[in-house]
Amino acid sequence: MFITIEGVEGSGKSSTMKKVVERLKKEGYQIVTTREPGGTPIAEQIRNIILDVNNTNLDARAEALLYAASRRQHLIEKVWPNLKDGKIVICDRYIDSSLAYQGGARHLGIENIININMFATENTWPDLTLLFDIDPEIGLRRIAQNNNREVNRLDLEKLDFHRNVRKTFLELAKKYPNRYVIIDSSKPQNEVENETYKIIKERLNAN
Amino acid sequence: MFITIEGVEGSGKSSTMKKVVERLKKEGYQIVTTREPGGTPIAEQIRNIILDVNNTNLDARAEALLYAASRRQHLIEKVWPNLKDGKIVICDRYIDSSLAYQGGARHLGIENIININMFATENTWPDLTLLFDIDPEIGLRRIAQNNNREVNRLDLEKLDFHRNVRKTFLELAKKYPNRYVIIDSSKPQNEVENETYKIIKERLNAN
Repeated sequence: MFITIEGVEGSGKSSTMKKVVERLKKEGYQIVTTREPGGTPIAEQIRNIILDVNNTNLDARAEALLYAASRRQHLIEKVWPNLKDGKIVICDRYIDSSLAYQGGARHLGIENIININMFATENTWPDLTLLFDIDPEIGLRRIAQNNNREVNRLDLEKLDFHRNVRKTFLELAKKYPNRYVIIDSSKPQNEVENETYKIIKERLNAN
Repeated sequence: MFITIEGVEGSGKSSTMKKVVERLKKEGYQIVTTREPGGTPIAEQIRNIILDVNNTNLDARAEALLYAASRRQHLIEKVWPNLKDGKIVICDRYIDSSLAYQGGARHLGIENIININMFATENTWPDLTLLFDIDPEIGLRRIAQNNNREVNRLDLEKLDFHRNVRKTFLELAKKYPNRYVIIDSSKPQNEVENETYKIIKERLNAN
């Protein structure tokens, strides 16, 4: 089963998922957590170009193509081999992030971004996508409080940009109701964790 | 006017064009010669990933997406600004190389590669494409004799691969007869130069 987690910066998706995965692993589930570029050297090299704060003149379409290239390499080297081994793969951000960031917030168009990602992934959609939904203003405030995290180029984008990202995520949830589940990430942390755990368990039991 | 030159490795396209451009510049034509990544820093960074001999596990689709990203950045920073200034831009390899190498020789399909490149270039095709056609065996022998040139990952591909590249270029010349002109690159160097000069002059005079 291929699960992806999505949300604006500071939505708490990564820390929530870490806790939930610990719980599921204790129950014996074989889970691989990853995020693009997921430690694959070529995908890391691509990501370095995207996130380099000096590359301010990186064009939005070039950026979208780089994300698709990195995604491809990560699928081949990490996601597909683990799925083939029968593992549950949970990936922090995937196609939907490109759709929300490049397609929506950078106005390149959802269909254009789907198009290049279908080439990159050979039509590999997640089985389940958990959207950790939160007002981006709260999310960005969370990030600023967290001194352990490096500020990257995407963090520097203006708040309106992140509002467009959130809006697009919510549109995607409507477009893909079968695989999308929205989690209200403004709730207390333990509630968010419990809900996330419950949703994944239900899907695992249904399989 | 946007001119591209294409051909298998060792076709002599670059050295021929250098001589022809010298001649045309003496006549007063404003010409900018370039090749992807054309010295634009981001496109160079992308190219480094593609040509790194250590990246042997670079997937063909990821490679095609990286070329498209590099192409985009090069168009934005170099090709479009110069065309806008009224200059003649001559580019050593462009979309057709992706079509021949990734689409044809790597069997990703011409239409797939056109598709991602139309996204990358916003449908920017060259006005004229000169195909320097030669048997790849002769081309590769030329390269081996030339010690001044570094051997890159593409050079190491097998001869059959280069034969497929040539075959696809010739198919593309049939598919796009209006912009394609085939030059027999097995002829003596001065004949190839004269023919190249003549073709470009005719196009310039027709505009």
